[in-house]
Amino acid sequence: SPQGTRDQRPAHMALRERLFATVVACFKRHGAAAMDTPALELRETLMGKYGDSAKLIYELQDQGGELLALRYDLTVPFARYLAMNKITTMKRYHIAKVYRRDSPATSRGRYREFYQCDFDIAGHFDPMIPDAECLKIVHEILSELKLGDFLIKVNDRRILHGVFAICGIPESKFVSTCSSVDKLDKMPWEDVRSEMVGEKGLSPEAADRIGEYVRLHGGLDLIEQLLQDPKLSQNKLAKEGLGDMKLLFEYLTLFGITGKICFDLSLARGLDYYTGVIFEAVLVQQNDHVEESVGSVAGGGRYDGLVGMFDPKGRKVPCVGVSIGIERIFSIMERRVKASGEKVRATETQVLVATPQKHLLGARLKLISELWDAGIKAEILYKKDPKLLKQLQYCEDTGIPLVAIIGEQELVDGVVKLRVVTTREEV
Amino acid sequence: SPQGTRDQRPAHMALRERLFATVVACFKRHGAAAMDTPALELRETLMGKYGDSAKLIYELQDQGGELLALRYDLTVPFARYLAMNKITTMKRYHIAKVYRRDSPATSRGRYREFYQCDFDIAGHFDPMIPDAECLKIVHEILSELKLGDFLIKVNDRRILHGVFAICGIPESKFVSTCSSVDKLDKMPWEDVRSEMVGEKGLSPEAADRIGEYVRLHGGLDLIEQLLQDPKLSQNKLAKEGLGDMKLLFEYLTLFGITGKICFDLSLARGLDYYTGVIFEAVLVQQNDHVEESVGSVAGGGRYDGLVGMFDPKGRKVPCVGVSIGIERIFSIMERRVKASGEKVRATETQVLVATPQKHLLGARLKLISELWDAGIKAEILYKKDPKLLKQLQYCEDTGIPLVAIIGEQELVDGVVKLRVVTTREEV
Repeated sequence: SPQGTRDQRPAHMALRERLFATVVACFKRHGAAAMDTPALELRETLMGKYGDSAKLIYELQDQGGELLALRYDLTVPFARYLAMNKITTMKRYHIAKVYRRDSPATSRGRYREFYQCDFDIAGHFDPMIPDAECLKIVHEILSELKLGDFLIKVNDRRILHGVFAICGIPESKFVSTCSSVDKLDKMPWEDVRSEMVGEKGLSPEAADRIGEYVRLHGGLDLIEQLLQDPKLSQNKLAKEGLGDMKLLFEYLTLFGITGKICFDLSLARGLDYYTGVIFEAVLVQQNDHVEESVGSVAGGGRYDGLVGMFDPKGRKVPCVGVSIGIERIFSIMERRVKASGEKVRATETQVLVATPQKHLLGARLKLISELWDAGIKAEILYKKDPKLLKQLQYCEDTGIPLVAIIGEQELVDGVVKLRVVTTREEV
Repeated sequence: SPQGTRDQRPAHMALRERLFATVVACFKRHGAAAMDTPALELRETLMGKYGDSAKLIYELQDQGGELLALRYDLTVPFARYLAMNKITTMKRYHIAKVYRRDSPATSRGRYREFYQCDFDIAGHFDPMIPDAECLKIVHEILSELKLGDFLIKVNDRRILHGVFAICGIPESKFVSTCSSVDKLDKMPWEDVRSEMVGEKGLSPEAADRIGEYVRLHGGLDLIEQLLQDPKLSQNKLAKEGLGDMKLLFEYLTLFGITGKICFDLSLARGLDYYTGVIFEAVLVQQNDHVEESVGSVAGGGRYDGLVGMFDPKGRKVPCVGVSIGIERIFSIMERRVKASGEKVRATETQVLVATPQKHLLGARLKLISELWDAGIKAEILYKKDPKLLKQLQYCEDTGIPLVAIIGEQELVDGVVKLRVVTTREEV
């Protein structure tokens, strides 16, 4: 199979179905509708939406007709769909494969074909109500999956831009400064600072001023403190962002989930299209009494400008959404199942129809047909005269819990012998 | 969106989920495991497997590295998977999108990106037991979907080849003769005959001899008759095929489904790789007391040679499988739902949390949070102070059956008023 891709074998699929079921149940609980778009998009739809990453887009050969490419994420197709159909209100989820010509690090669970799992709310609404629901969803899913302790970091692009502005950064350097700030979860401040000064061309003083802000994190108290900050409170964007952040925390308090939420000024997120609230959920581990992040498992934010890029008149549809890092979560679950020694069944068969003597294939076929018609998940071995031991062995190998045995005596008596595989109990 | 593709909007998706659920339940009832392969395959994997149709394969641009293409069906990737992993026994289903650069006839439900829905049994087993199960599966699915009356036509490539041989057709013309015979469900015999003589170069006498056979159809009686046929019974392949067909009918009788099965010598199937039993299910309609086929909704057969094409030593893994024509069935269901006026809900929300007065957003958020945490599917309007009428209207538009109303009085009394949307009953 192609480099960076993989076949999903049955044991994988069974675990994956379990994971998808939890996530989909949560999305449906929040009233989202399912949707799908083609894996193929016109190249022009994707171009100019991903910045530098555009080089990772798979393009199709020109075989006559349109120039096509494979989708890179689910957000741009969603925005294209809304604009194309002039839809101004929608709450949908979309679970599907996306494609990136990345250097495959398959050992770390990164592939060129992988699933994304998105929930988005589009529409003109009162501030922060849909945004708060997105965070509630992340909280519900991570709680239900029992992956361990987690933290949801929240910030707002407007606050970051306000901070940059009052620190004297020219607007042309906001995006590149953002990408430096975004590295604070992997690099110490000193390294980020020298990148800002060395590579991004900020003055050491500006960098130091930024450093004083982006290392702050907290809750409502921090929001209040920044709203009192003499410089920041003078910046229009920052003030808007902080006001909304306060409202968001109010709603999250009503949802009872602020215990896992952290307002973190170092959170910047990579994508260009975010315009407001941004967030990212990380799993945290206690190592020697120090809390340590072990990677992002969900992220998202508000992108109010993307749909307008597809509308001929530039009409905007505000959107906020969350993407569950399903592949990362899957590889954590897989490792855990492996460690626990749990054997994941690839099938759901409830009973094997077996015979202890020869020349009874007809009886087996008749009985299994009755079981199927009654909605019971049943199998037989595809042999005319299989040995009973082989039939029992098949149950143990595949985890089938029951055997329905029909032999000469059972035929005479008009009964079926039911055997529990693990206990060998028979009735 | 690209030509010949379409977005699956929520109402589509809801109906599609219903259809998939029925099909998957049947596959699981028969002990199949789920599996997936990448949508991308190496070009060399697909080449030489589809005959003329290879020109419809989507190729990816050479962006450095391997030459890739989009999968054309799910059978070839399955065979590649078995050979690559040296798997000799497997029962799996696979539901996924495939890609064909066909002339889009989207009005007739034909697309360039569409779902296939396959169940296959691979392994060395006693004859006709897995083959019979495939037919049982088609019978179960079509019965459950209630699409109307149906008929499953069965034939065997070996019988057809035997017929061609005793009619004096050279082996080099078997495949092209097959494709003429395959048209008998759409064209009268006279037209098929003149294609055989004119285009395929058969002698008129040979064509007439073929005509006497391929217009036969029936059940066990016909099998017996052909087994007595002085010429056909002398042909080794035909004899094998007829013997197996008799066995198949024996098993289908035990399954109690022969009423819908027809041994039909005109069934040839398009694909090159079939080597034994072939079958196709059609919906039938009574028009003026004449039974008329309204198109194929499932098909399949035995392909014992395909896996060997991917094995370096050519080791064969016999396979038999069935493909459910999910897109065709979907478009029938869609037409039927439209005609019935049934409104398919795109979401599953059970209750809307509403307030009749202003300044009660906090109460709404607290209550809905409780409902979500209790696993209840609930929504609110994303407005601070929505009008009650708007909230009730939203329920009627989206089919939400219940409203949980919390007003000033309810807050004082510590209760919630529950309202049934259709009857306006309140408790």
